[in-house]
Amino acid sequence: METIEMLKNAKAVAGTIATLSTEQKNTALAEMADALLAHTADILNANEEDMTAAKGDISDVMLDRLMLNDARIQSMVDGIRDVIKLEDPVGRVLEETMPKEGLKVRKISVPIGVIAIIYESRPNVTADAAALTLKSGNVCVLRCGREAYKTSRAIIDAMKEGLAKAGVDEAAINLVDDTSRESANTLMTSPEYVDLLIPRGGAGLINACVKNATVPCIATGTGICHVYVDASADLEMAVKIVNNAKTSRPSVCNAEEVLLVNKDIAEQFLPMIRKALVDDRIAEGLIPVELRLDETAQKIIDGVPAGEQDFDTEFLDYILAVKCVDSADEAIAHIRAHSTGHSDAIVTSDDAIADRFTLLVDSAAVYVNASTRFTDGGEFGLGCEIGISTQKMHARGPMGLREINTYKYVITGNGHIR
Amino acid sequence: METIEMLKNAKAVAGTIATLSTEQKNTALAEMADALLAHTADILNANEEDMTAAKGDISDVMLDRLMLNDARIQSMVDGIRDVIKLEDPVGRVLEETMPKEGLKVRKISVPIGVIAIIYESRPNVTADAAALTLKSGNVCVLRCGREAYKTSRAIIDAMKEGLAKAGVDEAAINLVDDTSRESANTLMTSPEYVDLLIPRGGAGLINACVKNATVPCIATGTGICHVYVDASADLEMAVKIVNNAKTSRPSVCNAEEVLLVNKDIAEQFLPMIRKALVDDRIAEGLIPVELRLDETAQKIIDGVPAGEQDFDTEFLDYILAVKCVDSADEAIAHIRAHSTGHSDAIVTSDDAIADRFTLLVDSAAVYVNASTRFTDGGEFGLGCEIGISTQKMHARGPMGLREINTYKYVITGNGHIR
Repeated sequence: METIEMLKNAKAVAGTIATLSTEQKNTALAEMADALLAHTADILNANEEDMTAAKGDISDVMLDRLMLNDARIQSMVDGIRDVIKLEDPVGRVLEETMPKEGLKVRKISVPIGVIAIIYESRPNVTADAAALTLKSGNVCVLRCGREAYKTSRAIIDAMKEGLAKAGVDEAAINLVDDTSRESANTLMTSPEYVDLLIPRGGAGLINACVKNATVPCIATGTGICHVYVDASADLEMAVKIVNNAKTSRPSVCNAEEVLLVNKDIAEQFLPMIRKALVDDRIAEGLIPVELRLDETAQKIIDGVPAGEQDFDTEFLDYILAVKCVDSADEAIAHIRAHSTGHSDAIVTSDDAIADRFTLLVDSAAVYVNASTRFTDGGEFGLGCEIGISTQKMHARGPMGLREINTYKYVITGNGHIR
Repeated sequence: METIEMLKNAKAVAGTIATLSTEQKNTALAEMADALLAHTADILNANEEDMTAAKGDISDVMLDRLMLNDARIQSMVDGIRDVIKLEDPVGRVLEETMPKEGLKVRKISVPIGVIAIIYESRPNVTADAAALTLKSGNVCVLRCGREAYKTSRAIIDAMKEGLAKAGVDEAAINLVDDTSRESANTLMTSPEYVDLLIPRGGAGLINACVKNATVPCIATGTGICHVYVDASADLEMAVKIVNNAKTSRPSVCNAEEVLLVNKDIAEQFLPMIRKALVDDRIAEGLIPVELRLDETAQKIIDGVPAGEQDFDTEFLDYILAVKCVDSADEAIAHIRAHSTGHSDAIVTSDDAIADRFTLLVDSAAVYVNASTRFTDGGEFGLGCEIGISTQKMHARGPMGLREINTYKYVITGNGHIR
C-alpha cells in the first residue's frame, strides 16, 4: 500500500481506536499474542530470508539484533501479555475544577492519535510498539529498516489477524511497505495525518527527523552520559558505579561515555578506575575499557590521549573519555555544555553539592550515588517503554503509556455564557 | 545586538534564572512593575512614534491594538503584580517512587529554559510574556512586529531596569532588535539555544513556524470553533450560547465561526438564530452577523450562500457559516475534519449524545451546553495565559505557568548499580 494511503486509513480509524474500552483492547492484545505464537514458523521463515539477504551488508551486531529464534518470539509474546496487565492510561480525570457555579471543567487524558515510529532492525520493536500504542488508544504506523522488513511484515500480519479475531479494525496497526527514504520523508511531513513521530535509532536518524519533520517529533535515545566523581565521594562506591555505568551494557543509551574526576582525588581515584576497568577485566578474560585521557589524567595513569571530539561522542562501546576538573561547578558546566540531556550522575557524600548538581544539570535523569543505567521505563516503574526522550517538550526520559497520551478539557455547563 | 548573540547570552543565563527562589522572582516582578509605571512617559512617547509611523500601513484594528495610554500601561502593571500572586510552578515533586530499597526516584517540575515568542503588535504581550516566563524560571527572547518595536523596546528597557534593581541578570528578558524576517528565522532554527518557540499571531505566522522550525514549537491560537445544536437541545439555551460564542468578541480565537444545526429542528431554530444575530442586533443598533448558509439553511432563512471555503475560515468577524446536518455523528465527523482543534461545543439535553460528542471531538476544549468563549487561562483557573495550544504535544488549550515548565527525574541512591 502507498504510505500516504496507509496514513489516511490510520487517521480515519483513530477516533474508533481512541474510544475502545480497556476490555476490548486487552482482548485484542491477548489475540495478538496468541496469533504471534501460532505464526512462529512463518515469522522464523521470513526472518531467515531477511538474515540471508542482510549477511555481508550489515554488521554482526546488527545481524544479531535482527535474528529471531523460538525464545525471542516467546519473549515478544510475553511482552504483549505484560502490556495487558498495565493500567489503561486513557480517560483518567487529571484535574477537575468548577470556575463558575454549575460550570465543570475536567482535564481528561486521551490518546494522541496516529503515532509514526521510524526504527531500525530489531523485530521486537515491531511487536512492542504495536502493543503499546494499541493499549494507549493510539494508531501506529511503523517503518522499520529495509533489512528487517520481511520479519516485521510477518509479525504485523500475525498481529493483524489477532486484531481481526477480536473485532478491532486492522488499520489500528500498520507497517509501511516502502522502506526507502521516501516513506520516512512522508511520515515526517504529513502533519494532517501524523500526530506524533518517534524516531528510534542512531543520531543520524534522530537529527534528520528533528531537522526535516513538520510533524511533532520526540527526539529519543542519544545518550552521552556523564559520571562526575566529586572530591567528597566514597571512592569504592564511585568505582562500582563507574564500572557498572560503563561496562554492564556499553551498547545502550544509558551507558556512561564520559568520566569527570575532581582533581583533588584524581591521583588516588584514577589508578583505582584503571585497575577496575582495564587490569581486572583483562585478568578475568573480559574486554578491557579503552581509557581516553585528558592531559591531567595522562600524568597519573596510562591510556590513550583524548581528542576534543571524544567528549562529544556516543561510543556505545568499551571506550571511556576521562577528564579532570577543578570543582563540581566545572563538572556541571561541562555537562551542561556536552551532555545530550539523557542521564548524568554525581558521586558525592556532600548533600549541598548533590543538590547543586541535581538543580543545575539539565538532563532528563540526574543521579546522585547511583548508576546511569537505571534510566529505563521498567526500572522507573512505568512498566514498559516506547523510547527515552532527550528533549524537553511533552515527555522527558523514559516514555511509558501515559507519555503517549495527551489530554483534553471537557467543559459541561447549563447554558453558561461569558 | 545580533539575534544570535542575544540567544547565546540567554542560554548562558538560563541555569541561573531556573534556580532563582520564588522570593527573588517576586521581588524582581515587583521592581519590574514599578519601573514600568515610572517610565510611563517614555513608553507613551515611544508608542506615539510607532503609531505615527504605522498610520496608513496597518489597519485601524491593528492601530487600536498598538495604541497605549495611561490606563493600558496601568493594566500591564496590574498584570505583572497579579503574576506575583501566582503559585511558583518550579520544584514541585510530581511523583515519587522507590523502585529499589534506598533508590528514590523523584519527578520534579523544572523550567524549560529559553523560550522564544514571536508575536505582532500588542504591547501588552511584551510585558505579559516577560513576567510569565520569569515567574516560571524561564528566559524569554521576544520578537514583536516591526510596527511595535519602539514601544516594546521602551517596555523591555523599563523592565530590565527593574530586574537590575532586584539583582537579577538583565539577560533574563530579551527583545530582538532586528524585526526583519531573518531574526524570526534565526529563532526558528537555533535548537542549540532555543528550547521552545511559541508563535502568537495569524495562521500565516503559525504555519511558517510549524513548517520551518527545527526548534520545538507549540502551535497556538487558530480557532475555527463550532457549535452544534442537537435535535435534543433546549433551543432558547442554544440561541443564547450561539449568540455569545459569535458576538461577545468576534476577533478572538475562541469565538464561534461555524454553526451546525440538526435538520430535525432547523425549521424551528434557524429563524430564532436569524432573529437574535441579525434582526435584534439591527434593532439595537449593533453590527448584524452575516450568515453564510448551506443549501438546506437557505431554504429556511435569508442569508448569503456559503462557499466551500467558508467552513474552513477563521473569520474573526461578524460572520457565521451555517450548515445543517442529519445527526450528531455527522456533526462530529464535520468537526473532526474541519476544526482547528481549539474549542467546539454541543447543545443537547441528551447525556448519551453529549458523552459521544466529548469522546469523539478531538479538540483542546470540548463543551456541553456552554459557550466556547470560556477557553481562556483566566477562566480555567490557571491565573494567566501565555497562549492557547491547538496541538497535542506537551500542552493543550490554555497554557499557564505550569505549561511552560517541564520535568526532570532526580534519582538518589547509595551506590546503587544495575
